Amino acid sequence: MRLHAQHQPIALMRADCHVCRSEGLASRSQVLITSNGHEVQAQLYQIDSDLLALDEVALSEEAWDALAIRDGDSVQVRHPPVLESLAGVRQRIYGRRLGEEDLAAIVRDVVRGRYTDVHLSAFLTATATLPLSIDETIFLTKAMVDVGDRLGWQAPIVVDKHCVGGLPGNRTTPLVVAIAAANGLVMPKTSSRAITSPAGTADTMEMLAPVDLGIEQLQRVVQTEGGCIAWGGAMHLSPADDIFVRVERELDIDTEGQLIASVLSKKIAAGATHVVIDIPVGPTAKIRSHETAERLAGHLIETAAHFGLTLRCLYTDGSQPVGRGIGPALEARDVLAVLRNDPDQPQDLRERAALVAGAVLEIGGAAPPGQGIALALQTLDSGRAWEKFARICAAQGGLREPPQAAHVEPLVSLQAGRVTHIDNRKLSRLAKLAGAPERPAAGVSLHARLGDEVARGQPWLYLHAQTRSEMAYALEYARHAGDIVTIEA
Amino acid sequence: MRLHAQHQPIALMRADCHVCRSEGLASRSQVLITSNGHEVQAQLYQIDSDLLALDEVALSEEAWDALAIRDGDSVQVRHPPVLESLAGVRQRIYGRRLGEEDLAAIVRDVVRGRYTDVHLSAFLTATATLPLSIDETIFLTKAMVDVGDRLGWQAPIVVDKHCVGGLPGNRTTPLVVAIAAANGLVMPKTSSRAITSPAGTADTMEMLAPVDLGIEQLQRVVQTEGGCIAWGGAMHLSPADDIFVRVERELDIDTEGQLIASVLSKKIAAGATHVVIDIPVGPTAKIRSHETAERLAGHLIETAAHFGLTLRCLYTDGSQPVGRGIGPALEARDVLAVLRNDPDQPQDLRERAALVAGAVLEIGGAAPPGQGIALALQTLDSGRAWEKFARICAAQGGLREPPQAAHVEPLVSLQAGRVTHIDNRKLSRLAKLAGAPERPAAGVSLHARLGDEVARGQPWLYLHAQTRSEMAYALEYARHAGDIVTIEA
Repeated sequence: MRLHAQHQPIALMRADCHVCRSEGLASRSQVLITSNGHEVQAQLYQIDSDLLALDEVALSEEAWDALAIRDGDSVQVRHPPVLESLAGVRQRIYGRRLGEEDLAAIVRDVVRGRYTDVHLSAFLTATATLPLSIDETIFLTKAMVDVGDRLGWQAPIVVDKHCVGGLPGNRTTPLVVAIAAANGLVMPKTSSRAITSPAGTADTMEMLAPVDLGIEQLQRVVQTEGGCIAWGGAMHLSPADDIFVRVERELDIDTEGQLIASVLSKKIAAGATHVVIDIPVGPTAKIRSHETAERLAGHLIETAAHFGLTLRCLYTDGSQPVGRGIGPALEARDVLAVLRNDPDQPQDLRERAALVAGAVLEIGGAAPPGQGIALALQTLDSGRAWEKFARICAAQGGLREPPQAAHVEPLVSLQAGRVTHIDNRKLSRLAKLAGAPERPAAGVSLHARLGDEVARGQPWLYLHAQTRSEMAYALEYARHAGDIVTIEA
Repeated sequence: MRLHAQHQPIALMRADCHVCRSEGLASRSQVLITSNGHEVQAQLYQIDSDLLALDEVALSEEAWDALAIRDGDSVQVRHPPVLESLAGVRQRIYGRRLGEEDLAAIVRDVVRGRYTDVHLSAFLTATATLPLSIDETIFLTKAMVDVGDRLGWQAPIVVDKHCVGGLPGNRTTPLVVAIAAANGLVMPKTSSRAITSPAGTADTMEMLAPVDLGIEQLQRVVQTEGGCIAWGGAMHLSPADDIFVRVERELDIDTEGQLIASVLSKKIAAGATHVVIDIPVGPTAKIRSHETAERLAGHLIETAAHFGLTLRCLYTDGSQPVGRGIGPALEARDVLAVLRNDPDQPQDLRERAALVAGAVLEIGGAAPPGQGIALALQTLDSGRAWEKFARICAAQGGLREPPQAAHVEPLVSLQAGRVTHIDNRKLSRLAKLAGAPERPAAGVSLHARLGDEVARGQPWLYLHAQTRSEMAYALEYARHAGDIVTIEA
């Protein structure tokens, strides 16, 4: 049947089949399916019709893949074993702290696919309403590393960077990797897809080259080029993270403890030793104040130190988007413009990439303290970054041009004036309603920055959408959302 | 297709159909389905196979019923409107209290079927980890009453009772209704099905008579007999409760605030004016200490007073099960034995029913203070309670005999000794593993009470199961769970 269910293993069976009857299985209960030595736990739905024969079971793709079976193979279906780790989740719901073994057991069962949406949501909510303690964050990080693969590198220093997000279009990663690798550093970058934003780094990079690399291919790319920009989820590094992320996306939440465990588990599993964290701070960014940023930085550094990881946090301007594009393909175009030194490249993206790359060059020992930014800019100006980026893309499977959306509509200013405020959250919402990141060509392109003078009738933003109905949702939101960009006479 | 999904509206469509493509719908996204003026929000799953034609959609029973459609009817599928009330859930996840309008909006959307499992679980978990305040509990209760129907009665006093559960087999309700109605009180009892227990009152009563009554039938029964014992969920009284209960059952949690809102919203919607609450207290009951019981009683009375409801709380012995049976049919047999004054009736059930019925008779004005219990016992002894119960069952659709399980196995004592401790939670777990309440004939029958002398080889418990595999699970649990009943030499 090839049922699509986004990471959820599902089985459909006839309600009147002998297995359901003899095992006493009810619809929506969990079942354990085994075949040829593989097993997966799935949610059972029962049907009455003869779309399925009495001895047939239909599986979602996730279940299908986990069992490694083909059409016509036989499977066994029975009650799953009791889910002992749920006792820990229940404890946490009632506000009791969890220990190392509790969290390890929970994460193991999550990765085995034994948690339903209800269980996953309860665990993530409980650890948001009563935030994870530092100890719990350390235990969770360790548990998330332990259930996945770990990469090892033949280098004493392996650099990495991460942006805690909340700032649309902040796509410095491909630029930083190119600059770092061009200067001899080892930077095997694994990135995630969007959680609640219109694009994750992996979504954007995928517009320029394949990112779905296996561990062996990733190691080959890094060995020859010094760097890569790959999707972490393709690699079984901290695989629990992708499962948590799907639920967090549905709730549109992203909490400090989960954020720290998510970021650090990926870095530790990827074998990083020195990491720069970019924390944009601004009134509509994810981090709203310097106090919050400093607390987050403190908790990140404390947790990282527990794993022997050196961390440097940068507090950057989060008052407006970086670059012009918001959405995978549109952001990829900004990255290309900076690498190619296009005359109309977004200067803010170039400067921010140099800031982060400078810190990476310094922490990695490729530049003396205080001289990282200058080296980063020189690497861009000389074309060495572009050359390195093109080689990395070729090694990952080939450089390619980002797609164009089928529909583009401008939003024009109703009055002349100056741009005094930009609402990042509303911009992100607008880009998501236009289809990003599911539709990679969709999103918005912003042609106004704080302080710009705008004429009456001047387009200050372009909406890009792949379908007419998504364009309609985005336009309707733009009409009713209030000021996305404030233009004062 | 008649897909069974227990309250969850689900739609299956071809991934390559024109609606999915033009609307930009992804698998597992929510869709709004309309047909002939009805609408329902459903979770979309996409399939690749030709089990469905490109212009066909398959629906779960819940979606089917909500749309009131027949095979071959046409439906429209599109993006649902933005779920504004989720902002309140997110606030609550982050620990901010909710106001009256926030909770009203959440409950309205829950009842419209617009919340996914992830959303429902997050709301219930957030209000458990940071417990609902009294204000929030009042707002939630009001919201739950407002989204459903309300019953009105031509009587100045309408009595009701509720047991907060946690005590297996505590099936006094059918007895109390029979005693109260036999003494002229109006007691239109609506009960719930099990949340985390092996049987709810509705599950047990269903073994003796139909409980799935519509409002009109319920009113007819009460008008002629003074009382009824019906399933509340069949009546659209506080319909949000059944949705919450399904998720709470999956998490195996039951928090104070949700408990109060659940109980009181049902009582208020059912038109009760005077209510007796039975709170069993014991080391393995739901309420473990008198302090917890008194706090719960205080919050119940305070919340009830806000709605003009008079409440009396009884703290009862929660140290061991009441009666012998645990499971719908087995508990129904105990009820019949007491009503019929069988010589081997469970005396503890009889006495507890008289205690609760006595309080109901007093609070309802049918007995002077202090004389309720005597009147209750006299009503049982004289056969008036049995006569009234039989008439109520007849009015509800006919008295019937509870079913027998296909498999019965004894657990025998390995040594002679005295029963010193009974673990209610393990007993409940055992009854559920045997199949209760989904398999109504399943459960356990306990033949040992605190203080009893037991001989070596004497059966102290019988397991009842409908399938061999469920019997096997229960037996395996009994072998490994440690002392369910402690027998000391």
